[in-house]
Amino acid sequence: MSEKLVYMFEEGNKGMKVLLGGKGANLAEMTSSGLPVPYGFTITTEVCNYFEKNKEYPVDLDAQMLDAVKKLEEKTGKKFSDIENPLLVSVRSGAPASMPGMMDTVLNLGMNDIVVESLTKKSGNERFAWDSYRRFLTMFGNVVMNVSHAKFEKLLEEIKEENNIKLDTQLTTDMLKLLVSRQKELYKKETGEDFPTDAIEQLKRARNAVFKSWNNERAIIYRRINHIPGHWGTAVNIQEMVFGNLGETSGTGVAFTRNPSTGENKFYGEFLMNAQGEDVVAGIRTPLEIEKLNEIMPHAYNELVEIRTKLEEHYKDMQDFEFTIENKKLYMLQTRNGKRTAKSAVKIAVDMVNEGLITKEDAVLRVEPSALDQLLHKQFDSKIKYDFITKGLPASPGAAVGEVVFTAAHAKMQSEEGKSVILVRVETSPEDIEGMHSAQGILTARGGMTSHAAVVARGMGKCCVAGAEEIIVNEKEKLFTCNNHVVKEGDIISLNGSTGEVILGEVPVIDPVMDGEFEVLMGWADSFRKLKIRTNADTPHDAKLAREFGAEGIGLVRTEHMFFEASRIKAVREMILAKDLAGRKKALAKIEPFQVADFEGIFEAMHDLPVIIRMLDPPLHEFLPKEDNEIMEIASELNVSANKIKETISALHEFNPMLGFRGCRLAVVYPEIMEMQVRAIFIAAMNVTKKGINAIPEIEVPLIGKKSEFVILKELVKKIAIQTGAEGKVKYSIGTMIEVPRAALTADDIASEAEFMSFGTNDLTQMACGFSRDDSGKFLTVYIEKGIYERDPFQTIDQEGVGLLMKIAVEKARGVNPKIDIGICGERGGDPASVEFCHRIGMSNVSCSPYRVPIARLAAAQAALKEKGTIDEKAFNK
Amino acid sequence: MSEKLVYMFEEGNKGMKVLLGGKGANLAEMTSSGLPVPYGFTITTEVCNYFEKNKEYPVDLDAQMLDAVKKLEEKTGKKFSDIENPLLVSVRSGAPASMPGMMDTVLNLGMNDIVVESLTKKSGNERFAWDSYRRFLTMFGNVVMNVSHAKFEKLLEEIKEENNIKLDTQLTTDMLKLLVSRQKELYKKETGEDFPTDAIEQLKRARNAVFKSWNNERAIIYRRINHIPGHWGTAVNIQEMVFGNLGETSGTGVAFTRNPSTGENKFYGEFLMNAQGEDVVAGIRTPLEIEKLNEIMPHAYNELVEIRTKLEEHYKDMQDFEFTIENKKLYMLQTRNGKRTAKSAVKIAVDMVNEGLITKEDAVLRVEPSALDQLLHKQFDSKIKYDFITKGLPASPGAAVGEVVFTAAHAKMQSEEGKSVILVRVETSPEDIEGMHSAQGILTARGGMTSHAAVVARGMGKCCVAGAEEIIVNEKEKLFTCNNHVVKEGDIISLNGSTGEVILGEVPVIDPVMDGEFEVLMGWADSFRKLKIRTNADTPHDAKLAREFGAEGIGLVRTEHMFFEASRIKAVREMILAKDLAGRKKALAKIEPFQVADFEGIFEAMHDLPVIIRMLDPPLHEFLPKEDNEIMEIASELNVSANKIKETISALHEFNPMLGFRGCRLAVVYPEIMEMQVRAIFIAAMNVTKKGINAIPEIEVPLIGKKSEFVILKELVKKIAIQTGAEGKVKYSIGTMIEVPRAALTADDIASEAEFMSFGTNDLTQMACGFSRDDSGKFLTVYIEKGIYERDPFQTIDQEGVGLLMKIAVEKARGVNPKIDIGICGERGGDPASVEFCHRIGMSNVSCSPYRVPIARLAAAQAALKEKGTIDEKAFNK
Repeated sequence: MSEKLVYMFEEGNKGMKVLLGGKGANLAEMTSSGLPVPYGFTITTEVCNYFEKNKEYPVDLDAQMLDAVKKLEEKTGKKFSDIENPLLVSVRSGAPASMPGMMDTVLNLGMNDIVVESLTKKSGNERFAWDSYRRFLTMFGNVVMNVSHAKFEKLLEEIKEENNIKLDTQLTTDMLKLLVSRQKELYKKETGEDFPTDAIEQLKRARNAVFKSWNNERAIIYRRINHIPGHWGTAVNIQEMVFGNLGETSGTGVAFTRNPSTGENKFYGEFLMNAQGEDVVAGIRTPLEIEKLNEIMPHAYNELVEIRTKLEEHYKDMQDFEFTIENKKLYMLQTRNGKRTAKSAVKIAVDMVNEGLITKEDAVLRVEPSALDQLLHKQFDSKIKYDFITKGLPASPGAAVGEVVFTAAHAKMQSEEGKSVILVRVETSPEDIEGMHSAQGILTARGGMTSHAAVVARGMGKCCVAGAEEIIVNEKEKLFTCNNHVVKEGDIISLNGSTGEVILGEVPVIDPVMDGEFEVLMGWADSFRKLKIRTNADTPHDAKLAREFGAEGIGLVRTEHMFFEASRIKAVREMILAKDLAGRKKALAKIEPFQVADFEGIFEAMHDLPVIIRMLDPPLHEFLPKEDNEIMEIASELNVSANKIKETISALHEFNPMLGFRGCRLAVVYPEIMEMQVRAIFIAAMNVTKKGINAIPEIEVPLIGKKSEFVILKELVKKIAIQTGAEGKVKYSIGTMIEVPRAALTADDIASEAEFMSFGTNDLTQMACGFSRDDSGKFLTVYIEKGIYERDPFQTIDQEGVGLLMKIAVEKARGVNPKIDIGICGERGGDPASVEFCHRIGMSNVSCSPYRVPIARLAAAQAALKEKGTIDEKAFNK
Repeated sequence: MSEKLVYMFEEGNKGMKVLLGGKGANLAEMTSSGLPVPYGFTITTEVCNYFEKNKEYPVDLDAQMLDAVKKLEEKTGKKFSDIENPLLVSVRSGAPASMPGMMDTVLNLGMNDIVVESLTKKSGNERFAWDSYRRFLTMFGNVVMNVSHAKFEKLLEEIKEENNIKLDTQLTTDMLKLLVSRQKELYKKETGEDFPTDAIEQLKRARNAVFKSWNNERAIIYRRINHIPGHWGTAVNIQEMVFGNLGETSGTGVAFTRNPSTGENKFYGEFLMNAQGEDVVAGIRTPLEIEKLNEIMPHAYNELVEIRTKLEEHYKDMQDFEFTIENKKLYMLQTRNGKRTAKSAVKIAVDMVNEGLITKEDAVLRVEPSALDQLLHKQFDSKIKYDFITKGLPASPGAAVGEVVFTAAHAKMQSEEGKSVILVRVETSPEDIEGMHSAQGILTARGGMTSHAAVVARGMGKCCVAGAEEIIVNEKEKLFTCNNHVVKEGDIISLNGSTGEVILGEVPVIDPVMDGEFEVLMGWADSFRKLKIRTNADTPHDAKLAREFGAEGIGLVRTEHMFFEASRIKAVREMILAKDLAGRKKALAKIEPFQVADFEGIFEAMHDLPVIIRMLDPPLHEFLPKEDNEIMEIASELNVSANKIKETISALHEFNPMLGFRGCRLAVVYPEIMEMQVRAIFIAAMNVTKKGINAIPEIEVPLIGKKSEFVILKELVKKIAIQTGAEGKVKYSIGTMIEVPRAALTADDIASEAEFMSFGTNDLTQMACGFSRDDSGKFLTVYIEKGIYERDPFQTIDQEGVGLLMKIAVEKARGVNPKIDIGICGERGGDPASVEFCHRIGMSNVSCSPYRVPIARLAAAQAALKEKGTIDEKAFNK
């Protein structure tokens, strides 16, 4: 650990995020840039990590902090507990990655019975001074001493009841004084000691409480969801208090240098007069739009507009900043890269290139690929007319349809059962994070565009309607009312996050339309990336859609889906129940024309592009019925006895079907099945060729484990190619999936025969980690909670385990066959971290679902740029 | 391919087995050594392989063969089709590894209407000449032209019936002449052509037929069972015929230089006068013991005794040889290293060291480790008296108990259902090989100590009683009778292969007693090996037994078996059904005292030796009942509703339990289970320490995939060690199984924390190859038949796949922790090929079932010797 534990703001800069946290680094940067920042200092993240490791603080910490306090007193001319000019400070967390509202804050620190008097004198506002005092006692008691917030609230409610008033603003100075004295009693009762009046003692305790809040439950959950490592730690910022609640010439606000929702290059923000900063963010009062400030206090507004420009020039990115006006003087409290919707991220990136602020490379690196998801998912069909019951703020765009739920816990539970839910809350708080993550959309009754719900939803790419004030939420009775409508838990509603409309029932949704900036950015991305992007598609419809999204071929056609179709399943079952080869061939002959038509459709949609078709993969028992009534039905349909079917089902039963009789093993034991499929491919290819379509089939054998297995099936393909007359006419290749660890380990062997390879990372993960995807939920959740795995290996490649196997396979395969095409199919093909990994280990292509093709394109471009060493601060800009 | 395709016997030597086959190389060697071998030549194995590849023979083959024939005619002074002195030859297969009776042979080749007359004249024995003719026609028709052997037999039977005679010996010359003419008609009818009278034509066709027989079905099966590669090919030996059936001064026999059953250094053999060699081996007539020859023809006997000594001095090994006496003159037809029982192999090896013939290293290398199995399995308890119904020849030692079956197919079927069977046949033939392999023991009614049944059973280490002539087998009615007893299919009988006794019902069996030579050989083996040998044992009884067999510790205690015991299963179920942690802990507390006692017993048995105890491994659902009546029973026993149990069963159900919630995953999610087990280990260790027992527990965590997982459980162990007071008192270590591919790939990571590692090759194979052991039967059989896998990867390590993973793991682990103990547990620990592999990749120990400990000791010694470069011809001496 470094010896220097404390930095005055003027000692740091924006490059020191790891050490000073994002907030601390930016306060330092703003200070150095001459912006009006209240004085202060930062205690480093190293102190947090030291404490986590040693359960005690560095010996030198207090001394360094006292030294900084002394400097602070000199700069401000104020002094702790001073009768004339008392110093009050805020104590705030600030991690390298932004974690809004997740950790603790103490304001007005330094307050005591003496200071409240001197503050009264200095401000000329006794009520303000006592209000600050009671606020401080609440925060300190709760945050530092763990006295329940509700107990402090109760004292407040009691005073209001005794005096028959309803609003906080109606509290008189005397009432506040009484409240303070009761708070002190509560404090003593709960903690067994008197409230500490010494400011330094207060400061030490508050500092420690903020450091500890790094590991409170909601912070841990937030980090898990946002993939922020636990070892980063938080810094603590101690800063001179400035007051937005000194009266009507004071105020506080939050602003963005551009519109974080649309990306429009227009100043955007909200403020409240006579309020503290927390009042704006918490969404308790609905704030005013920033332009209104021009009417109320033009000099402050103009200063803000200047600062806006300065910030963007300085940071080369859209900023989200907080300000306070204390007695007409403007102070900047914080700035950071603003969270934004995908739409605005794209627009801002492209605009900033056009404005000359950043390069194309910067622009491509600046958009989080997974955020594109919200651009790529459905929107309400604009042709459909609907009535809305109310309109809130369009806090985060997109469309959401789901069942109404009223608690985060319920949202999580229902979503785990596969239901789509809309979380409806009066306002959200950090405790709701997990529930918000589980919901399709969020609807709040209170709060503005920068309220907790709005900020978090935009970050998540969730549809959100905030501040829908006509809604009255009754959490206890599990319903909300709105203009005479009563909506109960479980009722379906729809939200339009782009307009703020709330609709009863389900509104049909359609595919999104990509705008100009999106196309521009994707074009830049394509020019940088090296990986080819393919799609997984089993139908001509999906193939076409993916092509529109930029797919350069199909990486996986799953043929088993075709076997399940109503028109074929009978013949499939006939084949399985057949006594002998002749019987199987007869049944297969019935399926063949369907398969020919399937492949013709796909070849037409993918004209000129390669199409990997995977041979039948699942175990045969998957095609047989399970329930007795189904069995009876099929027995009479196929004219066999139900017993015969049951016998076959029982003969085919497997204890571990994942590791059973499936994939190429079917083709080895029953070659006639694969022969039929290969024949259908060649016939289809020759048929479409006659129409001028260029079909490029790539025949893929699943579940290969050994070269000798592949060779047998390669010979089968050659044989059918000759039999059908496709040999020499159809440009085809034959390759294999790599999903069995053994195949990855002997990829050199296999690559000496295979013409392409494609990682099946689902199966590879199942076998390499020993996790049955169907069963691992029982323990994998606990594993991720305990940090054994940082992320679910079924969502993103487990790079150090499964990834190592892939790396070995790529190296071995390329060793014998340098030009072999190596790809990946399955869901991880659209996971940005996995795409980056695929790029890094030198693969040729990735394949993902059509909607994720643009995400993969962007991720591939970023991977290529990062490899080039283009500066990347992204990790800290989350 | 070499240009030289044909070698005269005098051109070869015993070092040329790969090229000339075992028989050819030995005929050449004997020829050069001056032994009386009939002249001949060998066509190389390369010709066989050339044909297999090109489906035609090398262009030059016929010319080279004709040249050799010419030389043969010169040496013998005989000529094909000569009126004075006709040449007749045998055409025999001869592969690098002995495959007795598996391929085809044609004798008396060169015979035709002219030769039969000249042979009559020369031998003065018209009946012999015509008998040779009809034998030749049968063989040629059957072997070369595929005319069914039964059709020839039918002709023979017809003639016998017409003349009302029963024995072949009663056939007169006229009858034989008639038979020959009918055989020629049959030949023409079946093949559409006249029987070829030209000797060269006969020779070409016979040669080709013998080459082709390399790939007949029974040869393929034999090679599969004996792990002989298909690419070796067979040579063909063409040799001047000598006749043992020229009358009472002729004869033929088979002898061993030592007793192949006991190893006793005593001449051992059998012969028949006036017979051809096939008569002895086929077991059709029961032959005389070799000593009898001294009475009948002393000069020939004495010559044989001399040859016996010469052969052993020359080959340094026990020889199995064939001889023929033609008109009082002795000829050697073949010699090879004799097949032997394990008991005799051990005795011969040790004796030969004592006799100064070979070194200790040779002796250790000469005994096939897997053959020890027969020494290590049970014998009849000598204290038990039993009556036998008959006594046959003690053809292959050991004891066998099982249900009677009458066909090889049935034996195979029943054994696949897990039944023990005794195969009862009149006599066995090569078609029975698979059935013999499946049976516990073999009982034949006819045939001697060198009959097919006897030779094959000894090779397999199967108990065999041969030539039990009182038994009358009625295959059709599925029974046999013997001295008024009727034994039906499915009845239980017992065989004593060491005495030849056949017993009705089951005779109790006991553990074998090792004799002195065995101990001596094992002592030598121990002095050569580097691998430590441990055992898998779950009980004190097994632990003690293994210790007696030389185990140096326990490599695997499976604790789950303990959970299933009647006294505990109730508490185990209570734990699984418990609502919460408290309920689980309550149930676990009931199991703990039992576990303490379990471990105390094992520690006592393994005093001073390390004991690896594996934490609970199977998924919890394995402990729950499956059938409704069981559920009802347990519901009332545990006082919970049957529905609750069913709910739990359904909640715990897994699609792929192999990859499910088991192993260390249980310990991560329910640490209380492992805590109880660890506590029991420490308490037990401390308890036995008080009695002066030195307990060395090694706590093993199964199914680890990642270091972070292991660290959590290591901390758990440390915690319990401190809680119980064992820390500092008990010498324990903590390690992990390596059975998940991911763990093997990241073994460096894991080895930085683990104190030992043990490969679980069953699970590692399941996951690395994607083969569910419970389900893979459906395709793995086909895979082995098609040669995709040469051997079942569940029986011997798949070295190039699973083995590569092990190799990577050992290298990585040793890279960070050079002294880490790395072992293997599970069945492959006793498989010699796997043991050799473990030695080669630098592992520390192997662990196997108690009975296989000596096998592992010997295999480990051989591995070390082979590595040293000690000459190894073993591969060809099979």
